[in-house]
Amino acid sequence: MINHVWTNARLATMTGDGLGVVEDGAIASADGTIAYAGPRDALPPTPGAEFIDCEGRWITPGLIDCHTHLIHAGNRAREFELRLAGASYEEIARAGGGIVSTMKATRAASEDELVAHSLPRLDALIAEGVTTIEIKSGYGLDAASEIAMLRAARRMAKDRRVTVCTTFLGAHALPPEYTNNADGYIAMLCNDLIPRIAADGLADAVDGFCEGIGFTPPQIERVFAAARAANLPVKLHAEQLSNLGGAALAARFGALSADHLEHLDQAGVKAMANAGTVAVLLPGAYYFCRETKLPPVDALRDAGVPIALATDCNPGTSPLTSLLLAMNMGATLFRLTVEECLRAVTVQAARALGLSECLGTLAAGKRCDLAIWNVEMPAELVYRMGFNPLHARVWSGQ
Amino acid sequence: MINHVWTNARLATMTGDGLGVVEDGAIASADGTIAYAGPRDALPPTPGAEFIDCEGRWITPGLIDCHTHLIHAGNRAREFELRLAGASYEEIARAGGGIVSTMKATRAASEDELVAHSLPRLDALIAEGVTTIEIKSGYGLDAASEIAMLRAARRMAKDRRVTVCTTFLGAHALPPEYTNNADGYIAMLCNDLIPRIAADGLADAVDGFCEGIGFTPPQIERVFAAARAANLPVKLHAEQLSNLGGAALAARFGALSADHLEHLDQAGVKAMANAGTVAVLLPGAYYFCRETKLPPVDALRDAGVPIALATDCNPGTSPLTSLLLAMNMGATLFRLTVEECLRAVTVQAARALGLSECLGTLAAGKRCDLAIWNVEMPAELVYRMGFNPLHARVWSGQ
Ligand SMILES: [Zn+2]
Ligand SMILES: [Zn+2]
Repeated sequence: MINHVWTNARLATMTGDGLGVVEDGAIASADGTIAYAGPRDALPPTPGAEFIDCEGRWITPGLIDCHTHLIHAGNRAREFELRLAGASYEEIARAGGGIVSTMKATRAASEDELVAHSLPRLDALIAEGVTTIEIKSGYGLDAASEIAMLRAARRMAKDRRVTVCTTFLGAHALPPEYTNNADGYIAMLCNDLIPRIAADGLADAVDGFCEGIGFTPPQIERVFAAARAANLPVKLHAEQLSNLGGAALAARFGALSADHLEHLDQAGVKAMANAGTVAVLLPGAYYFCRETKLPPVDALRDAGVPIALATDCNPGTSPLTSLLLAMNMGATLFRLTVEECLRAVTVQAARALGLSECLGTLAAGKRCDLAIWNVEMPAELVYRMGFNPLHARVWSGQ
Repeated sequence: MINHVWTNARLATMTGDGLGVVEDGAIASADGTIAYAGPRDALPPTPGAEFIDCEGRWITPGLIDCHTHLIHAGNRAREFELRLAGASYEEIARAGGGIVSTMKATRAASEDELVAHSLPRLDALIAEGVTTIEIKSGYGLDAASEIAMLRAARRMAKDRRVTVCTTFLGAHALPPEYTNNADGYIAMLCNDLIPRIAADGLADAVDGFCEGIGFTPPQIERVFAAARAANLPVKLHAEQLSNLGGAALAARFGALSADHLEHLDQAGVKAMANAGTVAVLLPGAYYFCRETKLPPVDALRDAGVPIALATDCNPGTSPLTSLLLAMNMGATLFRLTVEECLRAVTVQAARALGLSECLGTLAAGKRCDLAIWNVEMPAELVYRMGFNPLHARVWSGQ
């Protein structure tokens, strides 16, 4: 039975190849699901439903942030300050900076503290219309702390009206306990942690950091094999700082996404296209780290690889909690079109999470996650910087 | 008599050369003015005052956005969209884009409409702790519309608890009525408009756009002479796209500030240093326009030129309504230090508006404009992107 009808709205449904605009639209929800989205004059009878007059506002699908490291403890602002003041990496390390500082703070925090420390970041995203967010582990780097991070992520989905997808990123960095023994750490992840996490239903996917300063392709391949054995889909931080063929490796495992991709080559593009792997671009990290090598957007576009955008919210390389700003950076820095940016945080982000069936567009059968905007045209969501025109957010029909 | 005391606070007073930190601080206000700012244990007796426990939060001076084109009508998001889709400038002009489109929409708007259209932008800045904002005219480009813009700016100071400084920017662009007759337009500004605006108290300063696509140094010099005759201080958009010696010209007139400055040379730096002219850097425009020529920050620093930062909020080249993000861009893109960024939107921005006497630091005698922050350290205000940690804003002691 239809509960709510949003009417007198302009819809960017994100169905088809473009924005899927319906100028005089209506959306009906039944038990949290979209029962109808389309022209107002074709709305089926809805006896007893509550009508919400949107006064001509635009409605998009609720936004989806498909790549974040939102949960962590500690504070890296001091490190940022030192670096700007000219401190060397050695000096910063001595002052307790770098990923190790986040690891230490995260290990020292209780599950409650992780939630409390991270909720303001989640609230900032929610305030901009985000209804689904992916959250990775990867700052614990031992069994107890990685599990605590994933539990904290699951908890946040209870504390807020938002969908949380959790990703196990044990293969993020080498913890000090395994110095000079990366293979031993990978073996521990594969033999112990991934099976446990899968058994407890703590992760929806498995990720890794394939890079000279991360893990090698053979190590990542072992992680992916363990994920496959545990029936978990994979994704990968690939080709951010160099080209190790990570995207192609991920594609071979049918990865949901390969992320960053500044150094992706044509073979990687082709492999992703063939596998249907989504390219998740992260312009916040590109901006914050002052990178100059652009991801191969034209090649991705030409090959038909779906392109998503995300905040990459993390304390070291992208302390970004605005998906609207990530869209502006996608357009300004990566030259994505407005349409590509808007699809990148809705329909393509849903695909990057393996949730195309139930999220990402305004269509019957999808979950009724809506963002209602005080804008004259959807392009404003990409064009403006540091402005939040959200009028209302609807999650699961309410 | 002291009305309010903020206590249990950490202060970044911005007095002296740095942040002027007071770890266990208190601020007392009397009739909207700071009566005391300093260590809590040296707070004078304050009988009958209301105490506000800041619970260890940081207090900075209220933020000052010293360069904006906040008031305008129209919408340039479509133009942004077309450009990303590959449209040429000619196609965009044919589609009604460019500054002319903003001029047309601004001329067509009533004073009420200008206020209504611009208030959401002002509210976005206020929500981040801005207590003083400069607003320029320059989209009317005829007497009636320039005056309407300045009146709208004065009106906004009544609609919101914020200080508005108005700047007459008639010499922003050549209106179509004066095609091929820039000197005639400048003569009209100098002989008619500037004296009227000054007589009516509508502007606090006079600005111009000195550039190949704007006005020549001799034309700007006439505008400055008219401003001097009307007893109004001057400032200048200078050296943004090329080096025309605008900053040195401005310095010769004792300008409050020269703004943009990407192409400033050493002679210009020296002239500014000698005149005490503030360098207002605008990284939002640099970012949005994908400029690659950086302003000479080291030279400005070495010469002791005060550096301010502002949003440059405008529809064509910087649709930015976050002064926090302007700070992040100042650090990330221009390599300003955290301390420089924080001083750039407080004490130096006050200086750029000629308001050093009454604004910009936490010190007895200054107006009690405060921003109270949920941060562990001031560096967070610069480090984070798209996050607003404002706890409370105080304007004129309330
Ligand atoms: Zn990441
Ligand atoms: Zn300007």
